[in-house]
Amino acid sequence: MKEILVNLGPRSYPIFIGNDLISSTDLFGKLVNSGQVMIVTDSNVEKLYLPKLQTTLKDIGAKSHVIPAGETYKNLETMNSIISDLLKNRYARTSCLIALGGGVVGDITGFTAACYQRGVRFLQIPTTLLAQVDSSVGGKTAVNHVLGKNMIGAFHQPSAVIADVSVLNTLSAREFSAGLAEVIKYGLIRDREFFEWLEKNIDKLMLKDTDTLEFAIARSCTNKAIVVEQDETETGVRATLNLGHTFGHAIETGLNYKLWLHGEAVGTGMLMAAYMSMLNGWINSHTYERIKLLLVRAGLPVQMPAELQHADIRDLMSVDKKVSHGRLKLILLKEIGEAIITDTFPEQYLRVTIQHFHHGHG
Amino acid sequence: MKEILVNLGPRSYPIFIGNDLISSTDLFGKLVNSGQVMIVTDSNVEKLYLPKLQTTLKDIGAKSHVIPAGETYKNLETMNSIISDLLKNRYARTSCLIALGGGVVGDITGFTAACYQRGVRFLQIPTTLLAQVDSSVGGKTAVNHVLGKNMIGAFHQPSAVIADVSVLNTLSAREFSAGLAEVIKYGLIRDREFFEWLEKNIDKLMLKDTDTLEFAIARSCTNKAIVVEQDETETGVRATLNLGHTFGHAIETGLNYKLWLHGEAVGTGMLMAAYMSMLNGWINSHTYERIKLLLVRAGLPVQMPAELQHADIRDLMSVDKKVSHGRLKLILLKEIGEAIITDTFPEQYLRVTIQHFHHGHG
Repeated sequence: MKEILVNLGPRSYPIFIGNDLISSTDLFGKLVNSGQVMIVTDSNVEKLYLPKLQTTLKDIGAKSHVIPAGETYKNLETMNSIISDLLKNRYARTSCLIALGGGVVGDITGFTAACYQRGVRFLQIPTTLLAQVDSSVGGKTAVNHVLGKNMIGAFHQPSAVIADVSVLNTLSAREFSAGLAEVIKYGLIRDREFFEWLEKNIDKLMLKDTDTLEFAIARSCTNKAIVVEQDETETGVRATLNLGHTFGHAIETGLNYKLWLHGEAVGTGMLMAAYMSMLNGWINSHTYERIKLLLVRAGLPVQMPAELQHADIRDLMSVDKKVSHGRLKLILLKEIGEAIITDTFPEQYLRVTIQHFHHGHG
Repeated sequence: MKEILVNLGPRSYPIFIGNDLISSTDLFGKLVNSGQVMIVTDSNVEKLYLPKLQTTLKDIGAKSHVIPAGETYKNLETMNSIISDLLKNRYARTSCLIALGGGVVGDITGFTAACYQRGVRFLQIPTTLLAQVDSSVGGKTAVNHVLGKNMIGAFHQPSAVIADVSVLNTLSAREFSAGLAEVIKYGLIRDREFFEWLEKNIDKLMLKDTDTLEFAIARSCTNKAIVVEQDETETGVRATLNLGHTFGHAIETGLNYKLWLHGEAVGTGMLMAAYMSMLNGWINSHTYERIKLLLVRAGLPVQMPAELQHADIRDLMSVDKKVSHGRLKLILLKEIGEAIITDTFPEQYLRVTIQHFHHGHG
């Protein structure tokens, strides 16, 4: 088992990465030793891992609340239903919530924990690769509004993150690839050595080799922890973690959050950011092709979906949270391992990039 | 104009107290000099002060969002409607909300500001005495859940509080008295000298004498600021600000948040706490009578409402946020000016107190 500390003063917490951690009564005994405990999970993960976790927590007597699976239900109504359950069972301010699931479960459970009685503790047990390397770490929590993704949320750090590598065995190939997009992201924005390690080890990763996975997850979390420590509430450098996300959110919004997974949209979005960086003269075509090849080997799409042929991607990008004083901010690449945040780029480059990535074009 | 600083490091902010501040273009020019601005107010305050504030802000071009007046609408649905308006108008992370109204408007606007895009700035312009001396200061924001008041919320400090004494002229006598309950509270929990000043000046206060009011509001805010500075997120001493609130919330819940104002429930609740303190042998009957007399002179009720004759007040108290590990915590008085937080009191004293305050009994 690896342990990484996210160092945020009074809000510091450990990330545990290892095999079959969900069954570790020792680990959970240390993390939830008092107070009322409520596990929040979704209808898919419930069948796979809820009984196992409840066995581990049997001495504590945790209750559970199951929400419908899917991004569609990451909204205020679902949060309200969790809060109703907490209030009916008279959960106090000293309670602890446990998020058992992917990014959706982590986001809504974290936001519920942030708001319930103005804030209670919560643990993250991410069950997708994407959640393990990204969304469970760093305290960003949110629900969606019909007019925009993650528009209602809070910064609320978990008390611990438990990344159990063994749960990735039940993950579909598409979900797994979607998680790799965020892994590759860390190489691109700040860790060139890791990017090169990924080029060498991507095939072993695709086979879900345990040691290779543990290394990739730990290295990703370490990168994320360092960035979050520098800028907890995203007033500066933390925005680089959004590489590919402004393009990606526009794709997801255009698809009404259907058909594509978040990580798939981010994968294509990162390549679009790389393309714009190439137009800006920062990375050369060889570097661009290296990035594209790694994404392809990771099983990720490198064109926008066919269904988006006629949507105005440029317009959808304007609703993004990264808009400041009316100007769109983008995360681009100076080089592999070096991201920059910029709002000064020729609008024309943006149009050309979107055109280039239209399905059937690039 | 008086200015008090609430000293919370990076979250510090000023409270301005004075006459006709809503018309001060100078003051607002300093406080909201960039970004998009949205005024949130309710259907009552809209008629009285929205045009005046919009005139003051005319160079900034603030939009406004009017919510229905009343505690009933302090919920997630109303918050969602404000967020819809912000998103439709593409308000960015750099936006500023302005809460123009009483405690309900301040709470819901503050919570919306806390959550919108994970947090934007907001200003408080409290238009009731209660909001000026209590709810607008300290960063507690929340909405209600059908199963409990203020159960969904956040700690989110405003950028500034503007307490305009002139708006109190349109306040009803009942609303004004309700605010005085919170003013008297500061004397009771930590400022004996202020309590004695109130005994001397309560009649002038009741006549809304401007200088007397400014002094009372400033002294109340100073007391609140000191407590909040010591314990921003209520892990300790800040709980003393809830003197009378556990009894008060039970009364409000029993009345389904109708008939009585919050401050009225707190007034009676404080006297109930004083009574329990007397049973505990901490304050004597003379002191108890002094407290009761000041509350009566301030126009506050000193018995539970007749409508609550048969409700189980004791049971309603158990749902309060101040419950910790199954034990009810109460704020009681060791002396005028000295509050303590305790969960060790004879249950019998609580029963006797509730009995004593039943309508027609005490």
